[in-house]
Amino acid sequence: MTEAELSALATRALEGLGLAPGNAAIVARILVMGDLFGHATHGVLRLESYGERIRNGAISATAEPVVEEVAPAIARVDGKGAVGPLTGMRALEAAMDRAKAAGIGIAFVRNGNHFGAIGPYCWLAAQRGFATLIGSNASTTIAPTGGREERVGNNPLGIGVPRPGADPVILDMAMSVVARGKIRAAVKKGESIPATWATDRAGEPTTDPKAALEGFLLPFGGYKGYGLALMVDLFAGVLSGAGYLTHVKSWLDQPTEPGNLGHFFIAVDTSRLGSSEWLAQRVGDFASIVHGTPAADASKPVRLPGEIEMENLRRHRRDGIELDPALVAKLESFAAGA
Amino acid sequence: MTEAELSALATRALEGLGLAPGNAAIVARILVMGDLFGHATHGVLRLESYGERIRNGAISATAEPVVEEVAPAIARVDGKGAVGPLTGMRALEAAMDRAKAAGIGIAFVRNGNHFGAIGPYCWLAAQRGFATLIGSNASTTIAPTGGREERVGNNPLGIGVPRPGADPVILDMAMSVVARGKIRAAVKKGESIPATWATDRAGEPTTDPKAALEGFLLPFGGYKGYGLALMVDLFAGVLSGAGYLTHVKSWLDQPTEPGNLGHFFIAVDTSRLGSSEWLAQRVGDFASIVHGTPAADASKPVRLPGEIEMENLRRHRRDGIELDPALVAKLESFAAGA
Repeated sequence: MTEAELSALATRALEGLGLAPGNAAIVARILVMGDLFGHATHGVLRLESYGERIRNGAISATAEPVVEEVAPAIARVDGKGAVGPLTGMRALEAAMDRAKAAGIGIAFVRNGNHFGAIGPYCWLAAQRGFATLIGSNASTTIAPTGGREERVGNNPLGIGVPRPGADPVILDMAMSVVARGKIRAAVKKGESIPATWATDRAGEPTTDPKAALEGFLLPFGGYKGYGLALMVDLFAGVLSGAGYLTHVKSWLDQPTEPGNLGHFFIAVDTSRLGSSEWLAQRVGDFASIVHGTPAADASKPVRLPGEIEMENLRRHRRDGIELDPALVAKLESFAAGA
Repeated sequence: MTEAELSALATRALEGLGLAPGNAAIVARILVMGDLFGHATHGVLRLESYGERIRNGAISATAEPVVEEVAPAIARVDGKGAVGPLTGMRALEAAMDRAKAAGIGIAFVRNGNHFGAIGPYCWLAAQRGFATLIGSNASTTIAPTGGREERVGNNPLGIGVPRPGADPVILDMAMSVVARGKIRAAVKKGESIPATWATDRAGEPTTDPKAALEGFLLPFGGYKGYGLALMVDLFAGVLSGAGYLTHVKSWLDQPTEPGNLGHFFIAVDTSRLGSSEWLAQRVGDFASIVHGTPAADASKPVRLPGEIEMENLRRHRRDGIELDPALVAKLESFAAGA
């Protein structure tokens, strides 16, 4: 399926779910970019759960996020429980508007929902010359270091820096060593997992994927990843006026309640710092130094964050995207209002 | 030694090294706070190397950092090779000034030097109601993931959120699993080290601390920590106009050349988001949820980032700070202009 076909299908599906056409296109764009980047788990596949939550009332198909300027360079966005990527794009636009005027801008979001992958927001902003720092909280899946109860979300953080005329550098990461999906895959295959991925219910590291699914994800890098997850939540959840930690509603445990996730979007207008030529030269030199590092394994060159996603983007735009026929059917049924 | 005595001694030492009295007091404040927080490696001990570099011309005792407003909420600071914490405090003030006016402000610093620990900047800003995101690059000690040459610094990142009437939450971390000092300590004690700390010169993980000192520090959390180190450098070094990656001069290899480190300081005026009571209630509730996590080991309660430092601060203010007599003698000799 081509990018245009997938975008049209996703947009129709969202319209079928009750979104206004313009809003449907915005949400589709973020999710399709997830697929283009190679993150199918954060692509149009999400429309299955978005659709379910729209139908049970946890997500509103018709809500319009409200943007309020509380300072020349701060926007507060009330997502009103709208579909996540709609609120995400409104907030990104608000942060970029303020950055255009003041050099840097921040948007704090409350009453948000799952907003797709962060990489697409960083990428879209980079195309317009903005560097970004973006974070969101999430329902709890991680136990604090030294604890044995999930009280922290796998709060993703994205950081992007534009490189005019070439690919931006984009880091998009969550705070666990691996995503829960990898543990589920190990259960299916009957394989054990490294003891660094998760703990069992008692907070002890485990190699049994079933025990891990009943336990907690481990943060990457131990207490450093745990600390970073907390700080993302303090910005995304506490400062924004959203839910935070255990106050964020889980789609699994409270499927019919609004999640009240929080996000923050920081945008910096790099045109205030120097010309595009200046920035292209510096980021290009930065990339050359990293790429020039002698590799430990000559067949695996050293990479910059986001490079694999940028390669996937080009390949998918050229060759199209393979979608599970069952998912296509599901999207068609949403589009038909079924 | 009391905090006041240590501050006076450090200030006199800096005056003896040629700093104007006001500037000496600013630098002393940041370094003494490092000691109060319990980070002696980032405390007044640093005056030994700062003094050496002032005397060989790599750091200027008399330079005044220049602050330029390039947008209503962006300051660019040329450190002019001044003593690091002087430039750091000028940049923090510039970021807070802009945040006062616009809600959020950022200062980008070039021609910087080692500026002490980041925690003290986050703490000082939090006392005035500012949340912060602060980063710096550093000379290279880390090999990129999959590489076997050091091309990335152990770039520290600090994030702070105020809690009016109580301790702020402050994460202050570098990007390696452990500091190089811990590996040096293992050499001294004749102990081996975990294979997760560092690689040998060929890029292979090692348990031999001597081989590790000739090799590279490993980033925390593998490629996630590596990616974060790069993004900190893109903001701190590339966007600021400073050195970055291998362009940052090392004190060990090029001791007489200015380092040209880069930093960024983001400040958010939390008073634009809600009242102090609102913020105190929310951060207090956040802390309670974290502290209420059942501990895996009942004797080790779950902690928030920065809690140990805040306890050290109170203890050192009450009981004083123990300083190595040789260091006191060195500071006295600087004070005497010797």
